[in-house]
Amino acid sequence: MALAIQRPDMLSLAAGFTDSESLPVGDVREIVEEISDLEAEAKAALQYGPNIGRDALRSSLAQRMAGSDSVADEAYQPENLFVTNGSQQALYLAVQTLCDPGDYILVEQPTYFVFMEILQGLGLKPLPMPMDDRGDVDVEALRTMLQQVAADGSIEKVKAVYLVSYFANPSGHSLSQESKVALGSLLREFDSPIAVLEDAAYRELYFEEAHPAKSVLSLEPFSDLPVLYTSTLTKPYASGLKVGYAYSNSPEWRDVMLTVKGQQDFGTSHFTQAVVERALLSGRFDRHLSELRRTYQRKMMALHEGLADTLLELGWSWDVPEGGLYLWMKSPKGLPTHNDSEFHRACLKSGVFYVPGDLCFVNEAHATDYIRASFGVLNEDQLGEAAKRFNEAALSVFRDAVL
Amino acid sequence: MALAIQRPDMLSLAAGFTDSESLPVGDVREIVEEISDLEAEAKAALQYGPNIGRDALRSSLAQRMAGSDSVADEAYQPENLFVTNGSQQALYLAVQTLCDPGDYILVEQPTYFVFMEILQGLGLKPLPMPMDDRGDVDVEALRTMLQQVAADGSIEKVKAVYLVSYFANPSGHSLSQESKVALGSLLREFDSPIAVLEDAAYRELYFEEAHPAKSVLSLEPFSDLPVLYTSTLTKPYASGLKVGYAYSNSPEWRDVMLTVKGQQDFGTSHFTQAVVERALLSGRFDRHLSELRRTYQRKMMALHEGLADTLLELGWSWDVPEGGLYLWMKSPKGLPTHNDSEFHRACLKSGVFYVPGDLCFVNEAHATDYIRASFGVLNEDQLGEAAKRFNEAALSVFRDAVL
Repeated sequence: MALAIQRPDMLSLAAGFTDSESLPVGDVREIVEEISDLEAEAKAALQYGPNIGRDALRSSLAQRMAGSDSVADEAYQPENLFVTNGSQQALYLAVQTLCDPGDYILVEQPTYFVFMEILQGLGLKPLPMPMDDRGDVDVEALRTMLQQVAADGSIEKVKAVYLVSYFANPSGHSLSQESKVALGSLLREFDSPIAVLEDAAYRELYFEEAHPAKSVLSLEPFSDLPVLYTSTLTKPYASGLKVGYAYSNSPEWRDVMLTVKGQQDFGTSHFTQAVVERALLSGRFDRHLSELRRTYQRKMMALHEGLADTLLELGWSWDVPEGGLYLWMKSPKGLPTHNDSEFHRACLKSGVFYVPGDLCFVNEAHATDYIRASFGVLNEDQLGEAAKRFNEAALSVFRDAVL
Repeated sequence: MALAIQRPDMLSLAAGFTDSESLPVGDVREIVEEISDLEAEAKAALQYGPNIGRDALRSSLAQRMAGSDSVADEAYQPENLFVTNGSQQALYLAVQTLCDPGDYILVEQPTYFVFMEILQGLGLKPLPMPMDDRGDVDVEALRTMLQQVAADGSIEKVKAVYLVSYFANPSGHSLSQESKVALGSLLREFDSPIAVLEDAAYRELYFEEAHPAKSVLSLEPFSDLPVLYTSTLTKPYASGLKVGYAYSNSPEWRDVMLTVKGQQDFGTSHFTQAVVERALLSGRFDRHLSELRRTYQRKMMALHEGLADTLLELGWSWDVPEGGLYLWMKSPKGLPTHNDSEFHRACLKSGVFYVPGDLCFVNEAHATDYIRASFGVLNEDQLGEAAKRFNEAALSVFRDAVL
């Protein structure tokens, strides 16, 4: 952020912000006008609301979740769903209420780096899970690891597993249903309950088709485990409204999280909730989202195509994502991309920056050859220019080193 | 809340909600239209914003604080001010970042009961301060108490003092400047730093004149002490927007609170911030607030006058507040008002309820003869009816007991 202010010519592939040009300014204006025309509705929206969130919004979201999982409408009950200040607050509440300092949370590799900052802030430790070649959790290797933890007498300190399961930040990867089921079965082998945090922030931001895996809430092995499923309404609509939600299959855990949320803020802004509720119920949300999916797909392609010719030849590699906001790129022959690397300096010199991949790993030293490039903020022209600058930096550094 | 749903005929003097009829529906509609007409402004408002809050909003608030304290505009620097999800989040962040489980926070008696819930949630203990007859802190008695704590070797565990210093919830009392100065001088006598949390949520909700005491930030004895001053923009405007703020004179503490806020939510809704910013800058906020002050004064008088004839004769007593949202009433001869009391049952039977005062004291058993009656939500007619029901309950219980 500070860098962006000092160097306004700089193009950022780093920020996790969302597309600005497509923001639904007209929608929100209309929605506020419609709400204002309904006096009781308007006054309710400008008054405090219940800590758990607006009823109609929660009902609509529970149905929406059922639709995404292709289960009966009544499979998800609104009383288990609560509204938060973005899904970030749900993650924070989940970890804060589950853990004591010194506890462990199992995380994928790579994982969402801000989640690791939450853990650090609360005195908790991320425990990296072994991953397979497809980017799924390697459940057999994880069994061996957890058996070792159990043998060491520390399994009670492992309080949860954190999964970014759809078009993940940073990897773009979605966990297969098979991998989820195997993971659930494994977790049930241990007497000490290990909760599951499923972060589905990007689930709706697919480009062409939703990912077929159901959420863990709908998968049988997880019915005995405490689960919190979190997502957001505003990353796929208008991030400035900041309305997320969380669903728990454990009433006891939900109540504790709601108590702490009450202490933290008494409930998320009732007004922004009313806006997204009307966006959902009026169909505007889904109309906008269909457009937005195409927008992000075009932007992804602009970045991907801008980079591919030069970088693939230099030995860079990445999967073309099917959703989300990120390209997750591996440099050739382990050449470092971290903040102090020659490559990072070359990028800054060219006028482009990115998130170094090592931030997304528990053991940073093991992975200094990834980068996260976001196509969320910049428009297609800017992405083309950012790709050029990135290529220029890659050529300047890697030509001598690699070729 | 549950009770209100079961018994829709019930009139609540309990809820701390704000006046609904006066909510600025037209203002907010116009503001959103104006923002929507400015494309760049609209898109910024619907995008993520900085964790610390919007620049123009923070500058405006810093100036506003300077105005309230009658000090030079530049006395308060916007970089020390951050925006929160209501002032509640600021209180939570302050306590969370200052304390370890088992630590103490000094509180007035009575104090804001939700603050004591925060302490309980974080494993902290409220330490009741001795109060004088005027409702100010009895600084001499507090000195004796803190010297004893120091002699016991526990002074390092006393991390802060919490003051609800203007038209307080629940007492309606404002701390005198003299009492603040004496308190600051006392706190400086101890080597171990004791921070000051000044909760000014009701400061702007005076009826006729602002309370003359400056905030502790502007008082000399506090210049050496870490201070966090918190207030809210939305209780005096539209509580559904939920925008509070906090100002700290300690850059280190501010930075830690901002780090934790980033982990909790990445920043308060940028959209609601843009709405209140425009309300402030366009003058709408102050126009609305002048009206609102008269509204609350009328409502306070409706409740006060509805109760006075019957209750004063029965021996109840209270001060007529000069701001805020509450009457803080003492029952005659210590007759109990707590949740299990005959009086509380009589009120429910009459169709009215209140917040029992014992919730606002650290040692509940010592003060079971107060009640908090809010005139925030009900309109004047309803307040008249609520007063009748309250009188009826008081007569039914106290006639035999007292007369």
